Amino acid sequence: MSASGSNTQILANKYSPTGAPSLDIFKTVTVPAPTKDSLKENQVLIRSLYLSIDPYQRNRLTGATDYFASQYELNKPIHNPGSAIVEASTSPDFAVGEIVDVPDINWENLSVIDATALRKVPSGTSARDLVTIFSLPSFTAYVGLTEIGKPKAGETILVSSASGAVGQIVVQIAKARGLRVIGVAGSDDKVEHVKSLGADAAFNYKKCGDYVEAIKKVAPEGIDIYYDSVGGEMLDAALATINDGARIVICGMISQYNKASGEVYGLKNSMKILDRYATVQGFLVGRYYGTATETAFISEVGKLYREGKIQYRVDETVGLENAPQAILNLFEGKNHGKSFVKI
Amino acid sequence: MSASGSNTQILANKYSPTGAPSLDIFKTVTVPAPTKDSLKENQVLIRSLYLSIDPYQRNRLTGATDYFASQYELNKPIHNPGSAIVEASTSPDFAVGEIVDVPDINWENLSVIDATALRKVPSGTSARDLVTIFSLPSFTAYVGLTEIGKPKAGETILVSSASGAVGQIVVQIAKARGLRVIGVAGSDDKVEHVKSLGADAAFNYKKCGDYVEAIKKVAPEGIDIYYDSVGGEMLDAALATINDGARIVICGMISQYNKASGEVYGLKNSMKILDRYATVQGFLVGRYYGTATETAFISEVGKLYREGKIQYRVDETVGLENAPQAILNLFEGKNHGKSFVKI
Repeated sequence: MSASGSNTQILANKYSPTGAPSLDIFKTVTVPAPTKDSLKENQVLIRSLYLSIDPYQRNRLTGATDYFASQYELNKPIHNPGSAIVEASTSPDFAVGEIVDVPDINWENLSVIDATALRKVPSGTSARDLVTIFSLPSFTAYVGLTEIGKPKAGETILVSSASGAVGQIVVQIAKARGLRVIGVAGSDDKVEHVKSLGADAAFNYKKCGDYVEAIKKVAPEGIDIYYDSVGGEMLDAALATINDGARIVICGMISQYNKASGEVYGLKNSMKILDRYATVQGFLVGRYYGTATETAFISEVGKLYREGKIQYRVDETVGLENAPQAILNLFEGKNHGKSFVKI
Repeated sequence: MSASGSNTQILANKYSPTGAPSLDIFKTVTVPAPTKDSLKENQVLIRSLYLSIDPYQRNRLTGATDYFASQYELNKPIHNPGSAIVEASTSPDFAVGEIVDVPDINWENLSVIDATALRKVPSGTSARDLVTIFSLPSFTAYVGLTEIGKPKAGETILVSSASGAVGQIVVQIAKARGLRVIGVAGSDDKVEHVKSLGADAAFNYKKCGDYVEAIKKVAPEGIDIYYDSVGGEMLDAALATINDGARIVICGMISQYNKASGEVYGLKNSMKILDRYATVQGFLVGRYYGTATETAFISEVGKLYREGKIQYRVDETVGLENAPQAILNLFEGKNHGKSFVKI
């Protein structure tokens, strides 16, 4: 927590177009904190409690302008979903002491924000839930699986980054819905974790040799759904093993984010989209907030979570000053479960 | 037409896994013709009138077993959609002299076929219409454009093989529905033809230089729908130019059919599916026969055709004995419009 009157901020310092960025892409500064006197009409002074850290943030630090999310502005705070507590308010909708869901919170202790940029917290949900079980990655898992994957009991789903923030939820919802679930992860430890979540099989892509053979070995019946968070070679291998009418959910392509254009992996098996009349689809999770899909998500996932049918592994970092290292760890795959910062 | 009592057949002689096949993949034989005495209960003796020739047939002559359509059996007649006239019938549903739609007709003069394998001809439709304006490629154009492309007036669509059997229909329906239409074709003559069909712009991919630049030049606003019949490099270029929420209709990948596995083009721009939350989708046109989509197709396309708002260029070959050369011409892109054989 910042000293009274001062505000620690994590700023974007410079862009890193390709490769693994280092800490100097961030800059930590201390500035005077806003007070309740700063509030204009219908604004709220919030104290940050939890910050979500997500893989897609890598793309907001490249300087490239053609990504769906805008680039972080240099010398301004990083921002991403989080949760906060209201310290002062000129809005009739938010009271002092109320926990709020902040779809786009600045990485700083205290912020002045328009009330319209805050969301009410669904009942029974904590500030920590908002960056863990009900966070963007969980909703992303749900939207991708249900809206694009259209899972049917008895089908086989392959899930990459199956131990990650999105993957672990995909694995467990798919299992709860009666699918055969195959997980892929990047360490033996993560593979064991995926199996402990109920996956029928899982393998370590760093040790399995040929990906196509590795998939066929554990899913000789072929893949009906591939929930992809990595892209590149694993996406290509999945295409080689899909069944007729398969759905490939494009949620992320983390294996490709740090590649220079000449190093991008060239997909060889795109003809399988034709041969298997498959669907390969990206999606914008934000479009599903406030829809029946969000209601179904809170209901279905909340129920599974309360019944202990969903385990949720998290990678917690304590202290705002440690957020830069936490995000670099995520970019390098060193996290284990959903990353977030507790301030 | 065969001499009375004899039946000319075009057989599959051998498979050609890759490359441009030569005439020796076919064998022409003359065998005794079936007669009405051959008919069992509920069968029909039909005389072939028109045979449709389609690009996907290349894949049925490779020997590969993982294609959605089965391989042509060696030493058996080639088969594909066509139309015929009934010469004899033991079915109450089909009368002598009736024109019939044959979804899978043998490449021979006379065939005995189960009545259940025949379809009634929609009223106002001729034997020639069945292999031209209402043929499989037209329906393929319609299904892909409407069910996957989901076109909206004011959007921009890029159509490859725009002068081909499928493409020319896509161009004209899209235009009739108020889209901006960009065609791609493989000769200046074809480009002119595409423009004459109403395309807002068209270019020759053999002369345009860099594909991405060529698309951007005529569609600076970006592509909302790409109707793809070629795959490979053009698909990659289209991905580079798509707008948010784009739909890519995977109808064919003729640029890749003849490639050995090491020569297959590697798609570099798959990350655009993520960034633009796009949909890339193959489809099985056969699933839409007998559905509301077929009814809408006959209604919408029939109306446009009768009103002269759809032109339909065909590449007619006369004589069953010339069918092998006609199909090779199609595989090599030497056809100009929908290929078919008039027997």
